[in-house]
Amino acid sequence: MTAQDLQAYLTTHIPLTQAMQIQVLSIASDELILQAPLEPNKNPHHTVFGGSIATILTVAAWSLVHTRLESEQLKSTLVVRRSALEYERPIAGAFTARAYFAAPEQWEHFTQTFHQKGKAKLEVLAVLEYANQVCARFKGEFVALATH
Amino acid sequence: MTAQDLQAYLTTHIPLTQAMQIQVLSIASDELILQAPLEPNKNPHHTVFGGSIATILTVAAWSLVHTRLESEQLKSTLVVRRSALEYERPIAGAFTARAYFAAPEQWEHFTQTFHQKGKAKLEVLAVLEYANQVCARFKGEFVALATH
Repeated sequence: MTAQDLQAYLTTHIPLTQAMQIQVLSIASDELILQAPLEPNKNPHHTVFGGSIATILTVAAWSLVHTRLESEQLKSTLVVRRSALEYERPIAGAFTARAYFAAPEQWEHFTQTFHQKGKAKLEVLAVLEYANQVCARFKGEFVALATH
Repeated sequence: MTAQDLQAYLTTHIPLTQAMQIQVLSIASDELILQAPLEPNKNPHHTVFGGSIATILTVAAWSLVHTRLESEQLKSTLVVRRSALEYERPIAGAFTARAYFAAPEQWEHFTQTFHQKGKAKLEVLAVLEYANQVCARFKGEFVALATH
């Protein structure tokens, strides 16, 4: 799945990503980066709204797992089960969300469990960056259920 | 601040609440309820997108504290500092977010600290309800900074 494919998928199936003007910047097997502008995501203080921060980080983390499952032909429904967020600094302009795995060996364990049980969970990290600083930190647990 | 006032405030200052079609249902001193329809908040499975769930719960909790600060003439900037979310069930239609305080005595302690230090933090709970079931649970920490 290319950045263009993911962009089309998000825009078509998740209208809120379109309202937020989320753009897919890059996809790798262990890192995925999204970007969005301030204007559709502003709060009363003209910085980025907490809901937009939570949303783009959730989408980045979900997309990292989704695109990797797709690339390995693992047919599944992927849902977020829980998340935790720390908001550290206000964000006054366009921002990026970068999702990654806490440890590379997680993926192998995840796919092994998925093959054995038809279901597996995985923790994904993501950070929100603006002006070369981390402004928010996300940790999410995702569950993949095998589909046929 | 009435439900109409809050509605106008959110729509004007937080564009994403308009994109999500968030409606203010009711405001009391210890409970605030918002509502939104499925369509602008759907995910690829035609249930409610996790980002929309995180957003409406954050807005409900923020609004509960914001409206109560306003009603008590406590001039402040209120921001979310951290949050945690449990996604328990898929949501297949219009949904509500209900924010409340874990304990009534929290508010008195919060306002005392606010008066003494010009800054105070408060934990707020919120639940997402659909078809008479709780489908997601939110816990957020908010910080109010005195303004003049």
